[in-house]
Amino acid sequence: MLNRFKSVVENVMGGIQSIPHNTEKAGNPESLEIKYAYARPDFLQLTHEEVHVSADHASRPILVPRSIERLPWNAGYAEVINGGKSKYNEDQAKAVQFMLKPPSVQPNSEDNRVLSKKKTEPVELKHITTTNLSIKNIPCTYFAIFDGHAGTGAALMAMNLLDYHVKEKLLDCIDLILSKKGLLPPQSPGAEQNSIYAATPRYGMTSKESSISVEDLVCGALEAAFVEMDNHIARERTTFRIIGGCTALVALFFMDKLYVANAGDCRAVIVKDGTSIQMSKDFTPESERQRLQYLGYLQPELLHNEFTHLDFPRRVHKKDIGKRMLYRDAQMSGWAYKTVEEGDLKFPLVFGDGKRARVLATIGVTRGFGDHDLMVHDSNIHIKPFLTPVPEVKVYDMTSCKHSEDDVLILGSDGYWDVTSNEKTVDLVLESLKHYHKGDQSRYTRLAQDLVMFARGLLKGRAWKTEGDKSASGDDITIFAIPLYRYKPLNLGKSRTSQTNSIPNS
Amino acid sequence: MLNRFKSVVENVMGGIQSIPHNTEKAGNPESLEIKYAYARPDFLQLTHEEVHVSADHASRPILVPRSIERLPWNAGYAEVINGGKSKYNEDQAKAVQFMLKPPSVQPNSEDNRVLSKKKTEPVELKHITTTNLSIKNIPCTYFAIFDGHAGTGAALMAMNLLDYHVKEKLLDCIDLILSKKGLLPPQSPGAEQNSIYAATPRYGMTSKESSISVEDLVCGALEAAFVEMDNHIARERTTFRIIGGCTALVALFFMDKLYVANAGDCRAVIVKDGTSIQMSKDFTPESERQRLQYLGYLQPELLHNEFTHLDFPRRVHKKDIGKRMLYRDAQMSGWAYKTVEEGDLKFPLVFGDGKRARVLATIGVTRGFGDHDLMVHDSNIHIKPFLTPVPEVKVYDMTSCKHSEDDVLILGSDGYWDVTSNEKTVDLVLESLKHYHKGDQSRYTRLAQDLVMFARGLLKGRAWKTEGDKSASGDDITIFAIPLYRYKPLNLGKSRTSQTNSIPNS
Repeated sequence: MLNRFKSVVENVMGGIQSIPHNTEKAGNPESLEIKYAYARPDFLQLTHEEVHVSADHASRPILVPRSIERLPWNAGYAEVINGGKSKYNEDQAKAVQFMLKPPSVQPNSEDNRVLSKKKTEPVELKHITTTNLSIKNIPCTYFAIFDGHAGTGAALMAMNLLDYHVKEKLLDCIDLILSKKGLLPPQSPGAEQNSIYAATPRYGMTSKESSISVEDLVCGALEAAFVEMDNHIARERTTFRIIGGCTALVALFFMDKLYVANAGDCRAVIVKDGTSIQMSKDFTPESERQRLQYLGYLQPELLHNEFTHLDFPRRVHKKDIGKRMLYRDAQMSGWAYKTVEEGDLKFPLVFGDGKRARVLATIGVTRGFGDHDLMVHDSNIHIKPFLTPVPEVKVYDMTSCKHSEDDVLILGSDGYWDVTSNEKTVDLVLESLKHYHKGDQSRYTRLAQDLVMFARGLLKGRAWKTEGDKSASGDDITIFAIPLYRYKPLNLGKSRTSQTNSIPNS
Repeated sequence: MLNRFKSVVENVMGGIQSIPHNTEKAGNPESLEIKYAYARPDFLQLTHEEVHVSADHASRPILVPRSIERLPWNAGYAEVINGGKSKYNEDQAKAVQFMLKPPSVQPNSEDNRVLSKKKTEPVELKHITTTNLSIKNIPCTYFAIFDGHAGTGAALMAMNLLDYHVKEKLLDCIDLILSKKGLLPPQSPGAEQNSIYAATPRYGMTSKESSISVEDLVCGALEAAFVEMDNHIARERTTFRIIGGCTALVALFFMDKLYVANAGDCRAVIVKDGTSIQMSKDFTPESERQRLQYLGYLQPELLHNEFTHLDFPRRVHKKDIGKRMLYRDAQMSGWAYKTVEEGDLKFPLVFGDGKRARVLATIGVTRGFGDHDLMVHDSNIHIKPFLTPVPEVKVYDMTSCKHSEDDVLILGSDGYWDVTSNEKTVDLVLESLKHYHKGDQSRYTRLAQDLVMFARGLLKGRAWKTEGDKSASGDDITIFAIPLYRYKPLNLGKSRTSQTNSIPNS
């Protein structure tokens, strides 16, 4: 056991590892067709040739969109490939705007179905006028970063399909959202006999039912969409070749709120008034130690008697048996002493510090999509049960203040955050923005470029160095810089014209 | 199934329930001796007769200590029995100060053992002088509230024994704590060949080992002490009659920090400068929904096919099958739609709103001690796996500011918090304290009494009413009011005399 893991761990400690995929379950994926061929994000508008050139690990060119209009709100984007860690840039990105059309206000239905109620039930119709029902299109603005590992398959799937799943899940509850906002009758959905929704009688509604907020529904839609995305990959991996896994970070602007859903170690930060508001938590083997340990404790069969769910400050040796040593159990945040037993010699479920921390000596991420067939090297121990696609969703009120042209939301992959901090990002944003005129259409593209440039640094000799001759990032680096002032508050209940204002670029 | 739970749930919904204990496992507890007879806290110095009189459910007399000197720092304490919910006052309390004597500086050892090192190892001895080693007594001040249910046994055990377990766990790591503070050589403990501790070589210490802080060790000691307390009850319940369960809230003043460890729905709040700092989180079936659901999901056998781990906004009916309904899974914070299936008709693992929420239709608390033999009514479904003794520990730096005579830590059982809030408590504290002179020895006793009086209210007709004729608390109510200015910062490394200053009443 110890020897078997030694080589894996040593490799892991080197920081760069091609994660071995067990291919037993999915047949032989080599023989399967690829669903989405390797590509860079659409809005970069790269030719085949350019995609090839962009993957130059030696010069690491920074890519920005050719046409700024291809991104909502003239948002900025820049990316650069890794320094040789993998053949392709395993980061992916998407930016898209779409309109949600509530099923209950579809053409031909708006004057009939929505307003038809059982005559016997009292319905407050004061808000329900045909004018109000013209809010038939709810605009959504969606930005996402996916950081792939051990292959490009999962990140490409997520780039192509996650926004579809988010839209589907929002459509599931849009009627209820409008009803909560007072824009549809309170009984809807479910008031009608033949509705697909379970009826929720207006009188007799539990306090729990009435306490569910619009935020709860959007958070739930994002959570469900992430789970569905992962299930989608699980299903299609027997038909198509979908290799590797990826983390996911989504920023969704919807009904005057910014929802940031994060499953992984990309990070979203709002830079505003010279300070930062972190809009996501980094999920890593270290930050998720307790969740992972708890699972290993409750389902020890997942550890195959080869790993221990207990955490020790260092590897336990045979000579430690019978002595007292600090440890942490699943539910502990602090450290206490225990007497070391034979079983404590097993390899720890979570091992290594910081960026080197690994789950089951194999993987450095704990959330995201894919990795369904990933196994511990040379074993039949599955990694996937320890990973989860469920994101944590944080919410920011877009109407909480008036945003200026210098207020931005930064989405970055870990390649950026590994060599910076929230504070440093505030400095970089302020420094960069003051060089570009507020009316300059390319202002946020240049900002994104400056941030990527900082993290990539410059090649000095054989090493990439950033400010103060510190090590720069050798990882793939991706940045969105999204100007918050471009979001126009919804004017629900007003004419349709005012709605479309909030999508100036679409 | 549905009918079987109906009566239990109806009873639960009434708010008062004598939780049935399954006695199968522990033999017949009726025949076992009681370990600790029913009593009120020592510092109240009640006679047998007075204990009896204090349990008058009709008049509900508020009890305060006869002698103020019996409590550390002239801290305030007051309690009142429930309005008839149970025969005895099921709250218990403890206040105690003790000295920690590090094993390595025990008499006869301080000039030998601690300073003896392997001659070959370089040891920084600059801080290690006999003067410094006079910090042989580390003072600890401990306050605790236990809120019992379904019997007084567990709360009485915890009142009598938890401070012992806390002390033992602190002693386990006191050498390491002193070493982290630079008051013992860095290798200690474990540097010696025959030490009971696994050696942690100074060179080659992992970054994890060196990053473990004093706070981590004290938090770990509290966590481990709570677990040990629960194990202690589990062991002794076959020998003694230990009925019921209890929540636990501990405030520990130790080495210039206040540690608040909470396992249950008692609450600790610092009132300072006219604002409140909540020092504990309320653990209830609602706040712990995700932990409980996750356990039910991972170990479905615990639910015996009678309960579902899924959460719905209302009970699911047969006619809902095939329709879409909102739900929350274990890892979701929001709500999404699912199609209702047969299995969703099972009774929910967590059901009911607010104070009426119950785990497995039985119990309204989720953390604490005891309840080892508690079963779902008329079934073989165990409740205990869903309960945990592990506390959450919050830390407050006692040296972060100079505390005034009006800065207090309030510990209260849920009987108090059910009818108040943090904000209301700030008002009550300020209003009360201005009536009593700062030099008045009974100032904090009077404060505690005023808080209990507010929550208990006055008997109007047949109901206890508080301010504005609102319902008062019919539960047992317990309050500690601890003056923070009485804590004297440690002067580590100084003479022993200055140490003992921080225990003026001991």
